Amino acid sequence: MATLVMQLLGCDVASLNTVHFSNHTGYRQFKGTRATAEQITDLYEGLCQSHLTDFDVMLSGYAPSAAAVEAVGAIGMDLQRKAEKKPGSFFWALDPVMGDQGRLYVNDDVVPAYKKIIHHADLILPNQFEAEVLSGVRIASLSTLAEAITVIHATYNVPHVIITSVDLAGFSESSAQKTPPNSLTIIGSTTCSDGTPRLFRVDVPALDCYFSGTGDMFAALTVARLREAVFAADPQLQTTKSWVSPDDVKATDLPLAQTTVKVLASMHNVLEKTMEARNAELRAADTQGDEQLSEEERQKRQHLRNSKAAEIRLVRNVRFLRAPTVEFQAQEWKKEDLPSGSA
Amino acid sequence: MATLVMQLLGCDVASLNTVHFSNHTGYRQFKGTRATAEQITDLYEGLCQSHLTDFDVMLSGYAPSAAAVEAVGAIGMDLQRKAEKKPGSFFWALDPVMGDQGRLYVNDDVVPAYKKIIHHADLILPNQFEAEVLSGVRIASLSTLAEAITVIHATYNVPHVIITSVDLAGFSESSAQKTPPNSLTIIGSTTCSDGTPRLFRVDVPALDCYFSGTGDMFAALTVARLREAVFAADPQLQTTKSWVSPDDVKATDLPLAQTTVKVLASMHNVLEKTMEARNAELRAADTQGDEQLSEEERQKRQHLRNSKAAEIRLVRNVRFLRAPTVEFQAQEWKKEDLPSGSA
Repeated sequence: MATLVMQLLGCDVASLNTVHFSNHTGYRQFKGTRATAEQITDLYEGLCQSHLTDFDVMLSGYAPSAAAVEAVGAIGMDLQRKAEKKPGSFFWALDPVMGDQGRLYVNDDVVPAYKKIIHHADLILPNQFEAEVLSGVRIASLSTLAEAITVIHATYNVPHVIITSVDLAGFSESSAQKTPPNSLTIIGSTTCSDGTPRLFRVDVPALDCYFSGTGDMFAALTVARLREAVFAADPQLQTTKSWVSPDDVKATDLPLAQTTVKVLASMHNVLEKTMEARNAELRAADTQGDEQLSEEERQKRQHLRNSKAAEIRLVRNVRFLRAPTVEFQAQEWKKEDLPSGSA
Repeated sequence: MATLVMQLLGCDVASLNTVHFSNHTGYRQFKGTRATAEQITDLYEGLCQSHLTDFDVMLSGYAPSAAAVEAVGAIGMDLQRKAEKKPGSFFWALDPVMGDQGRLYVNDDVVPAYKKIIHHADLILPNQFEAEVLSGVRIASLSTLAEAITVIHATYNVPHVIITSVDLAGFSESSAQKTPPNSLTIIGSTTCSDGTPRLFRVDVPALDCYFSGTGDMFAALTVARLREAVFAADPQLQTTKSWVSPDDVKATDLPLAQTTVKVLASMHNVLEKTMEARNAELRAADTQGDEQLSEEERQKRQHLRNSKAAEIRLVRNVRFLRAPTVEFQAQEWKKEDLPSGSA
């Protein structure tokens, strides 16, 4: 997913596969192999020895063990080190894939491995649960959400953060109720020079379907679009370490905010098309054979059918990656908007 | 290369990687892993158990051992078997990757492994050397070329063959001299109902550069375009086993011939753009550090630099895959065109 999305947006990608599975894990069954830390390191050494490491951007995602996270981290750090003399010439976006919905789906030792390497990343893209794990702050309100982001910036010295999905409807505060119904909120921030967050939020309509791969899709689109936004901004920005905008740039004018808005528009278009195709596929599905199955078998068959039908339709919807037809808005999110009593 | 090309032409691809290398082998050094036969089989079983095998087309390419070739062969045969009751609903294109320029670059036992599975393929795409290996005919003239194709059709019962590059300039016959200078010839054939070949040839200008991945690019474009050409032809063809056109279809009107012409046009456009980019990259290359190297080291460094500069520029030249700007012609190649005395 991530490789193809970047390629479709015109990036030449060297993909280092950390797993090779028959299908995504949403099917609840799969076969295949996981790369060891040694194999990951070895592939990178292969690139080094042939002088093939002139990357502008690195996107790191799921790694199947703590050792693999460390190996990926070592690659990111080596590339940062190589680019040290040319600030802005290399950017590392790190998706700290650890879990979702209150549950870790990696080994416990993966968490400290991520905590060690995030210091070196330029952007991280945790979901709400991962942001809780990294910050140690339980996110149950707008104020704790702001606190979590502030803590992440400060603890890990990471200049850009996007929390890729926040369940504001689950919050109790009155200000959270202002969120349009059936919507999903994405929160982002780029630090000011004093380390304080510059927060923005984008609300998008939620689609009533579970898709696998949206996290990778979001991250890949963000990487491709952010570089574009930085190059379109003040020319100084592209030679600034980590592409951190000057303090006078408002939250909603940040390249990160402009990127997020565009990324979400592309995703909304593609996922809407996917949902149409899914519905048509499920209507046309031949379920006659199901009658002979046990209830358990029938449910499993139905889950596999649903999972396949909901596979994101990317290759035929490339136009929406390039030029989305919807437009969302980033809103600045200031301290005074937070409920009273919050930090 | 193959996966991306098919995706760029709108195909949803399930890619089963038989190797995972840091770079292509043209660099003369690489690191990474090869899939075992068991790993290949396991991934396919993963697809089967979740009902993810409704493929229209399979393209098989390089496999790193005889056992791996057998494992790939078993997948192709299983998919053929599943489609048995719906002729034309599945098509297997097999690239018998074994060697080039008179030299095998696989183990000797890979050759008999290919010879066993080719019987089940619908299309094979050998280069000149691989066609010699499969036919047992040394190709040194137009007549021996025709003989090799006839033998391949007959021995392996494979209905479509494309020989992806023929060195006609190396032939001694007068008819070969008619070939325009600095050109490359591609020969294809679809059998008639009596098993005789329907031969066509396409001459294209050769580009003075060595590119890696052109074989995979050719195969992937052919697979995507052939299905399109078959669906655009007589509606009966898409439900005909192996998409073999009726006997009254002339060689140059074959979907395979129309496909080849289009594929070569796309390739010519993309490779021409690649050559321009390569030349610019080499002109701009910083070779100052080379002076301190030994002669051997300097040559190696230069080879790595040349290899990287010649990497095929695909992602920015997608428009040429979709709509090439040059047009080539397929010519019918009849027996009477062959030098006298040939079969």
